[in-house]
Amino acid sequence: MFVSDFLAVDHQGHLTIEGADTVALAQQYGTPLYVMSEGQVRESCRRFTSAMRDCYGENSLVIYASKALNCKEMCRIIRSEGLGLDVVSGGELYTAMAADFPAERIFFHGNNKTPSELQYALECGVGTIVVDNMTELELLDSLAAAGSKVQEIMLRIKPGVEAHTHQYVMTGSIDSKFGFALENGEAFEAARFAQKCKNLKLRGLHCHIGSQIFEIEPFCETARIMLRFMLRLKEELGLKIDKLNLGGGFGIPYIPEHDPRQPVEFLRQVSAVVHEQCEQLGLELPMMLIEPGRSIAATAGITLYTVGAVKEIQGVRTYVSVDGGMPDNPRYALYGSEYTAIIANRAKAPADFKATIAGKCCESGDLLAENIYIQKPVPGDLLAVLATGAYNYSMASNYNRIPRPAMVMVRDGSSREIIRRESYEDLVRNDI
Amino acid sequence: MFVSDFLAVDHQGHLTIEGADTVALAQQYGTPLYVMSEGQVRESCRRFTSAMRDCYGENSLVIYASKALNCKEMCRIIRSEGLGLDVVSGGELYTAMAADFPAERIFFHGNNKTPSELQYALECGVGTIVVDNMTELELLDSLAAAGSKVQEIMLRIKPGVEAHTHQYVMTGSIDSKFGFALENGEAFEAARFAQKCKNLKLRGLHCHIGSQIFEIEPFCETARIMLRFMLRLKEELGLKIDKLNLGGGFGIPYIPEHDPRQPVEFLRQVSAVVHEQCEQLGLELPMMLIEPGRSIAATAGITLYTVGAVKEIQGVRTYVSVDGGMPDNPRYALYGSEYTAIIANRAKAPADFKATIAGKCCESGDLLAENIYIQKPVPGDLLAVLATGAYNYSMASNYNRIPRPAMVMVRDGSSREIIRRESYEDLVRNDI
Repeated sequence: MFVSDFLAVDHQGHLTIEGADTVALAQQYGTPLYVMSEGQVRESCRRFTSAMRDCYGENSLVIYASKALNCKEMCRIIRSEGLGLDVVSGGELYTAMAADFPAERIFFHGNNKTPSELQYALECGVGTIVVDNMTELELLDSLAAAGSKVQEIMLRIKPGVEAHTHQYVMTGSIDSKFGFALENGEAFEAARFAQKCKNLKLRGLHCHIGSQIFEIEPFCETARIMLRFMLRLKEELGLKIDKLNLGGGFGIPYIPEHDPRQPVEFLRQVSAVVHEQCEQLGLELPMMLIEPGRSIAATAGITLYTVGAVKEIQGVRTYVSVDGGMPDNPRYALYGSEYTAIIANRAKAPADFKATIAGKCCESGDLLAENIYIQKPVPGDLLAVLATGAYNYSMASNYNRIPRPAMVMVRDGSSREIIRRESYEDLVRNDI
Repeated sequence: MFVSDFLAVDHQGHLTIEGADTVALAQQYGTPLYVMSEGQVRESCRRFTSAMRDCYGENSLVIYASKALNCKEMCRIIRSEGLGLDVVSGGELYTAMAADFPAERIFFHGNNKTPSELQYALECGVGTIVVDNMTELELLDSLAAAGSKVQEIMLRIKPGVEAHTHQYVMTGSIDSKFGFALENGEAFEAARFAQKCKNLKLRGLHCHIGSQIFEIEPFCETARIMLRFMLRLKEELGLKIDKLNLGGGFGIPYIPEHDPRQPVEFLRQVSAVVHEQCEQLGLELPMMLIEPGRSIAATAGITLYTVGAVKEIQGVRTYVSVDGGMPDNPRYALYGSEYTAIIANRAKAPADFKATIAGKCCESGDLLAENIYIQKPVPGDLLAVLATGAYNYSMASNYNRIPRPAMVMVRDGSSREIIRRESYEDLVRNDI
């Protein structure tokens, strides 16, 4: 299937994921259900790590941006694949530590890390803190001093590049809550300040130009800008920056029309630019880091729902209601994100029925997709929404006090629960 | 203050809520923190119940639409005020039952109640199930038969009225996932079918025309339409419908420009229409029900945040980052909803600083408000966002694995925790 080679249709016409029958999974674990393919997660990791090695060399690191899907089992898989881990909160860091992720390979991001989060990161021995702003720079230096530590940091830079993407996930431009701008001198001043901080060791620059990007050129342009800034820091401040983190934002195929570049294609072009530019500028090749999140988790995951009411409104449209919705996947409500869906128990039937997939929330905006083509549904059918591995569980709420689904990981046809389904008791656990 | 009479500023320039100093609350409970005024909740309830009694009479019921804010303590307060309770899921029902809410005063809504939710509602003895579609009608009748029960129901009707409101919260028109349409005969057929169901007792009609509505006329027009339909059911089917539920959707003031009608004003006009129309049509006056949710919870609540980084970007804008954001309040990200904010520890200072309030999530769309005027902020300040009592906690997520805030209820200057702050342990509780 276009989304993932780990999705197929078996002789019964059932959708399978890494050899597991989705109909059997729904029976065993109930719906709604998040299902992940471990094979797809690992393959995506390896595509990045091998392409990085082949195109750029050993002085590099692929870091999983865990906000896409952060849970203990994902941290374990990422660890075993040898990637670094990007966390954006104390909670993500806590999860990584609970999964025994090596702290030195953790990168801590965020535009407004709290003092207690920074303190916690220092205590954990987090390898790199990506500092976002002056307040954080001063605070972290004083916390590190109090703990008699020297903390390795990167600075988050706004390179001024905007990738073509949805307005809500646009970053990199000067009008962003993230990072230090290059064009107004902020970034230079931050580096100068960091250089004087006795308990901080500035080793790298980080940037991030957007999300769900299908073009390679914006990354190349960003690399050129960042390297020119490195040269300036070297020449004017004598600062040797030996790590360049180009962030993430690599697009994935939610619908057949989406045509993302392969990691090897991306890394070949970007690596060539970095090599060329370093040679021209007389810079040593920095360690190169990238941060795929969505492109590792998204296509590995599907969500299974049971179809309930099917409401055909003549001359208007047909609403197909499922037993989940915006609480487990708010991306259509938030961004109008497109998805592909399949009736998983009759996946060989023609997908010629135009449907709007509605969730069960008491809210008109609770839709998962509008006017897409699926197999003609009847109540009781199993509906699979594809490419839900990223930013679904991680963004899930208990809106309408709907418990969050379980998540199972499939490996070579067999499945195991990796996140338990929330119970009604869980919902009121903190109620007094 | 325009939002609530229970908000004030004390001699120290601190924002107070029902006599409690917000600065002291933040110190005691930490931030981010949801704070509710019990007095405001109760006053809002009483405004509706007394207006209903005065304008329409005793044959009426005000029902709290608990999806706005459903937790055990809110259920207890609503119970003590004598309102009914509208729930939209098994989880909301579970919470109500855990708070000993009388089941006979519970109304169960939803466009896609699952078989297990309907079964659970029957077991709880829920007073009224508001049936949304034919699939549910058949299913509920068979479940009730299996349990040897006769279940009282209402039918959810699409009256064809659209109130002027945000597209995401528009309902009532034929293009809606909710209910039976009048104009294509669906609603009539559903009533005819329900009449034949031995284990269902059709007593009422329900409708809901939108959210955050400031006009009264759409409700009046809806009442006329619903009463004409009642007459038709009486004349053509001999069906006596004695309950008319006009739903909710009453607007509240998020910003000073919002000018909602008072319950008494609304109910005077709508009651007059119902009386007049019943007389004209020769109908007995039905029991009238309304379902305020937001208009009971929203203005009673504020959220307190600690200000972190303040990023002034010359010629662009100033980002004021707080220690919460879209995980505790996704409404700006979802709907572009407007809010009023105040620096709570210097609330008397002039609100002349133009700020964009940014959350701490690694997502550009994580904003709480753009280009609003607040007191000039510095890191460490306390920021209060007003009118967050509805659809904030209820829609909250753990995006970025950020724990959900605690909620405290203030009564006459003293406070008590009603929802405990989530811990890091809570975040991984269901992780395997």
